[in-house]
Amino acid sequence: MKFLYTGVEVPDLDRSVRRYTEGLRREVAGRGPVASTGGETAVLHTPRSHQGLELNWYPGSNYTSGSELDHLAFEVDEVGVDASHLVELGGRAVREVEHEPEYDRAYVTDPDGIWIELMHPKPRQ
Amino acid sequence: MKFLYTGVEVPDLDRSVRRYTEGLRREVAGRGPVASTGGETAVLHTPRSHQGLELNWYPGSNYTSGSELDHLAFEVDEVGVDASHLVELGGRAVREVEHEPEYDRAYVTDPDGIWIELMHPKPRQ
Repeated sequence: MKFLYTGVEVPDLDRSVRRYTEGLRREVAGRGPVASTGGETAVLHTPRSHQGLELNWYPGSNYTSGSELDHLAFEVDEVGVDASHLVELGGRAVREVEHEPEYDRAYVTDPDGIWIELMHPKPRQ
Repeated sequence: MKFLYTGVEVPDLDRSVRRYTEGLRREVAGRGPVASTGGETAVLHTPRSHQGLELNWYPGSNYTSGSELDHLAFEVDEVGVDASHLVELGGRAVREVEHEPEYDRAYVTDPDGIWIELMHPKPRQ
């Protein structure tokens, strides 16, 4: 299990990308639309760090102060097993486990409602 | 500049440490009181990831849903230079730069008010 990145919700993606690249010298590793939400996501990296920071914009979101922490993402070996384990410990499964060609994915809350993403990448066939 | 860890505020430190260790197989790399706040902090790591997750409990905090994201921490070469640069870009310096024997540290907000920690560790004399 590996902590991959912190996903932050932002109300203005261009503004946030500028600040994190100009002010914190991060680089845009990828940016593009997200079909499942209709929003847009930018992934920022730095040469010296493997840890990602993901900036997420969602159309029609009721963004307010306090909406910033979107999710904490972990890579796991078996999404279903770890999701069930978190639910047994009291977490709430906020989405069904998704089985996609490139990955399996689930979201379960932590004790305070933070969305925990459990993701298992699949090797390309 | 290196993204070091995500700091999350939690209302019940024992409960959160249990969930992140039992449910997400993280290990407690350190835990103890924080003199400057009167609170307590636990730092969690996993063997396969250098990225830290910090759980922070503050006495007397008005914790509500939306308080989760406490700060994003970056290691930098020169705290004062990077803090000034972020302020020029529109950030708000929420604390004076601290010069301690072990580190220099500053906090400046991002465009949405997220506290960005800029930290420079000093070699031991």
